[in-house]
Amino acid sequence: MYDFEVEKVLKWVRGSGAKFLLVQAPDGLKPYLSSLLEALERRGVTVVLSGEHSWGGCDLAFCEAKALGIKHILHVGHHGPVRFKISGFNILFIPGYAELHLDAKPLLSQLKAMKARRVGLAASIQHLRSLEDVKKKLEEKGFEVKIGGGRFPGLVIGCDYSAAIAAEVDVYVVIAGGVFHALGLSFMTDRKVLAFDPYLGRVCSAEKLRRRVLARRLSDLSEAISAEKFFILVSIKPGQNRFALALEVKRRLEKAG
Amino acid sequence: MYDFEVEKVLKWVRGSGAKFLLVQAPDGLKPYLSSLLEALERRGVTVVLSGEHSWGGCDLAFCEAKALGIKHILHVGHHGPVRFKISGFNILFIPGYAELHLDAKPLLSQLKAMKARRVGLAASIQHLRSLEDVKKKLEEKGFEVKIGGGRFPGLVIGCDYSAAIAAEVDVYVVIAGGVFHALGLSFMTDRKVLAFDPYLGRVCSAEKLRRRVLARRLSDLSEAISAEKFFILVSIKPGQNRFALALEVKRRLEKAG
Repeated sequence: MYDFEVEKVLKWVRGSGAKFLLVQAPDGLKPYLSSLLEALERRGVTVVLSGEHSWGGCDLAFCEAKALGIKHILHVGHHGPVRFKISGFNILFIPGYAELHLDAKPLLSQLKAMKARRVGLAASIQHLRSLEDVKKKLEEKGFEVKIGGGRFPGLVIGCDYSAAIAAEVDVYVVIAGGVFHALGLSFMTDRKVLAFDPYLGRVCSAEKLRRRVLARRLSDLSEAISAEKFFILVSIKPGQNRFALALEVKRRLEKAG
Repeated sequence: MYDFEVEKVLKWVRGSGAKFLLVQAPDGLKPYLSSLLEALERRGVTVVLSGEHSWGGCDLAFCEAKALGIKHILHVGHHGPVRFKISGFNILFIPGYAELHLDAKPLLSQLKAMKARRVGLAASIQHLRSLEDVKKKLEEKGFEVKIGGGRFPGLVIGCDYSAAIAAEVDVYVVIAGGVFHALGLSFMTDRKVLAFDPYLGRVCSAEKLRRRVLARRLSDLSEAISAEKFFILVSIKPGQNRFALALEVKRRLEKAG
């Protein structure tokens, strides 16, 4: 179901001389890892699978690796490090591309119903390889299709949608499990966004969910305005640790009384 | 409701020159921390409260402290470090003694119903200060009461019941929230164990729960005997990290085919 690029991983392991390897993956991918892990064990590598969640390329298991004295981390499921530099560890990122047959029919009928003509395509890293295929299918039906630029054209991640944004489209289509990435993109653009879930073969608009999330955020904000005590949350994930910013927020809140 | 020994904490903070302090506490104690945290902030200490669980003196938030560059940890809720040595950090342990009025009536009637005469008393660290009071109340009613020895006489923690075990008693009474510690002690002794929950004022026998837990463990073991694939779980908590032992278990399992 996923391409974990076993040969590439084994080559990296040989080249780096890793004897112990910490493997990290999102919970949704863990059930599919066994053949990769077994291939590693057969080559004499002792594999430790992180039991933590793994939400993104910002979320590296340095604590676990340090606690176990492991220097090599195989990070599965994301495209690369996000907002931190690697030092003291040898890390390989394997996206885990999905190997699914995408049925574009529900997408086509939805786009027709919307009278869309120009479509912007984007995907989470698992489905990035499907972009060209879906593009072709849409173009065959007369749609004009654009994929945003950057190092990974069309890629959406939780905190960065710049590689997905293409000029001059009527609607964006985000190919990803669930609606998380479509929701994120819909906050970044004033165009319509459709979530195309390749696991369920389902297409739905991010519009309604965006309105609901926005309403909740505004309600939380209006409640915060009259608050007297604040908690500031600081993440210790390597790419999310913004302790200095948290201290600045604290300083400003205190200054404002 | 709890004595967090604010003066002692402030003295330690002054003496150690801490400007930033990571405070760690079990989730159940967190709602009661505010006056302690506010006292610290008033003295110019920037307090970061760990959002993680904190299950024992083996469970120190070194990862979080390291990620934030904080050298001082105030660990609330446990008696001291368990199975690790402190290095590179300045740590103060504050048990968080409960300040509850204990009504011993339900305990007395239960002990009478059991026709017990000699009682061994033990408590989790929160209720350690109640031991002498309960001892006195039981002795007034004619019971013979013993409290085990050690540095913290009568203390039970999840992985060590040695300080609770007293010779020659008919029944043990464990003063603690819930039944966790009573269950643990009942696995360590062939005597009856009563759980006395001072929050609910309720007394119940650990017997039934012990039988259930034992049955489940035996069922899990019998299932494991016929398993072909094993996961070995390794904790990275400072006092629980037994990676070398896990590797030895792996080696033996593989040797056994």
